[in-house]
Amino acid sequence: MNEKAALSLDLGGTNVRVVAVTESGKILSRQHSPTGSTSAGEIYDEIARLAERCKEEAGVFEFAAFGAAIPTTTIGDNGELAHLPNIPQLEGTDISRELGLRTGLKIVAVNDASAATLGEHWLGASKGALNAVGITLGTGVGGGLIVDRRLYVGTGGGAGEIGHIRLVPGGRPCGCGGKGCLEQYCSATAIVRSAGEIGLAAGTARDVFDLAASGNAAATAIFSEMGSYLGLGLSIVNNLFSPDIIVLGGGVASGWEQFFPATEAALYENSLPDRRSRVKIVRALLGDDAGVLGAAKYTFQQL
Amino acid sequence: MNEKAALSLDLGGTNVRVVAVTESGKILSRQHSPTGSTSAGEIYDEIARLAERCKEEAGVFEFAAFGAAIPTTTIGDNGELAHLPNIPQLEGTDISRELGLRTGLKIVAVNDASAATLGEHWLGASKGALNAVGITLGTGVGGGLIVDRRLYVGTGGGAGEIGHIRLVPGGRPCGCGGKGCLEQYCSATAIVRSAGEIGLAAGTARDVFDLAASGNAAATAIFSEMGSYLGLGLSIVNNLFSPDIIVLGGGVASGWEQFFPATEAALYENSLPDRRSRVKIVRALLGDDAGVLGAAKYTFQQL
Repeated sequence: MNEKAALSLDLGGTNVRVVAVTESGKILSRQHSPTGSTSAGEIYDEIARLAERCKEEAGVFEFAAFGAAIPTTTIGDNGELAHLPNIPQLEGTDISRELGLRTGLKIVAVNDASAATLGEHWLGASKGALNAVGITLGTGVGGGLIVDRRLYVGTGGGAGEIGHIRLVPGGRPCGCGGKGCLEQYCSATAIVRSAGEIGLAAGTARDVFDLAASGNAAATAIFSEMGSYLGLGLSIVNNLFSPDIIVLGGGVASGWEQFFPATEAALYENSLPDRRSRVKIVRALLGDDAGVLGAAKYTFQQL
Repeated sequence: MNEKAALSLDLGGTNVRVVAVTESGKILSRQHSPTGSTSAGEIYDEIARLAERCKEEAGVFEFAAFGAAIPTTTIGDNGELAHLPNIPQLEGTDISRELGLRTGLKIVAVNDASAATLGEHWLGASKGALNAVGITLGTGVGGGLIVDRRLYVGTGGGAGEIGHIRLVPGGRPCGCGGKGCLEQYCSATAIVRSAGEIGLAAGTARDVFDLAASGNAAATAIFSEMGSYLGLGLSIVNNLFSPDIIVLGGGVASGWEQFFPATEAALYENSLPDRRSRVKIVRALLGDDAGVLGAAKYTFQQL
């Protein structure tokens, strides 16, 4: 086969996923396992094992590099990781060195939400857009920016942190050390917290959604409030960045019909008149593959 | 002479400025006059007269194009202007056609704050930076973004509108039609308004500054509050965009020692830990020339 191929990793707090993918975006093989909660060394060993199995299964002999979508706000020039609240064992480790030694491949690391944004731009919901924003509504809230059809990672690799816009001065404390971050009002965690605060029995955001869908007014109000905060955050992105399209992905995006009317209203109300109707808000298309595909695309672009 | 030259315009609500400038940034001639409050046709006629005088004075026979820094959030693909609260007579006019017919030159229009940002990046305070933000604190508050050493104008030409981040839900009404925009708390107009609200006799932001500098506690508190709001706005830009440097210009930047300590504190408190100390905040260096120089640079880049 003539097409280049790369390995690509999506390292989440819950699962580690590795795929082999071609330069045109065909996934040749997939492997995954739960993210170990033990040591950094064991996590890197497990990633290397998954990579090895992916290589065998793909039947490809040469890989151009190994892309890595990582839940961190900072990736050092040499691959040192910092600020990983969901996988603290990797704090301060050098992913380029650790995975490079274990696989013999060049490692290209990128923030996970940036990777998902690029994945959707390559093969998903924002394909072909000139300027796009991607937002992942999951346990936390991540984001990424496409500028002139390329991923913009910013200085330090952590651009697009819409989850840490301070929406509510003095509001809910956030894992980043601040207060009132958008993530504390728009993530799955936030929805469960809001439910708990008013005594709704709901272990997951899905439970709150099911209650809302069955007509429970309190659950409906939680999604509506979450949607308003999201719309306010999107208006800030829209005013600052003026994109063509904003893509919403992650587990919470499944609750679309419960939160989106409020999101649309708040976005309209708080956006500058010239761009309040121009920007398109759409759902992500690639699901869990967005991150590995985006990290692979970013990797091909760096070669 | 071998170097290319361009004409460049900065069209403000108060003054119209035109310069002739070379590709290396040397200003060969300058003209300015008050912005007429009459018809669009007369404003365009006056710009053409200033351009003609600039050409004569510069002693250059050929100009590559005519750049134009315009106080608008939207520049259509063909040069139609929209959303110009400070020069409403130009609303809906086509600057490319109007000035093209009068001067025989290709017109390249750009948002004024974006132009100032690019000017400072070309020859001023953010020279050489990879990723930079420029903010103009004047009658209003404008902004611009430099991405990978190029001006990013966004879809519709109005990226960087930091002045219209909604900082205070339900806050002061803004000229854009919204409420609580940063501009209503950090502009010269906002400072005068804050002074009026507490009965301080101050006709201009400069008056409030002089009072603060002479030890008036109420005036000091106004700058401190303005500085805090600005810092909160900068933290949003910093979290979303992760620039190396943010340049503050415009008349209000002269009040630096009164507002900056509060700005720095709020920026630190509300930025993500990885980038709270990394980003540099500096004063603009080019004064009133930033806009014409930036519009000229943008024009040379478009040729």
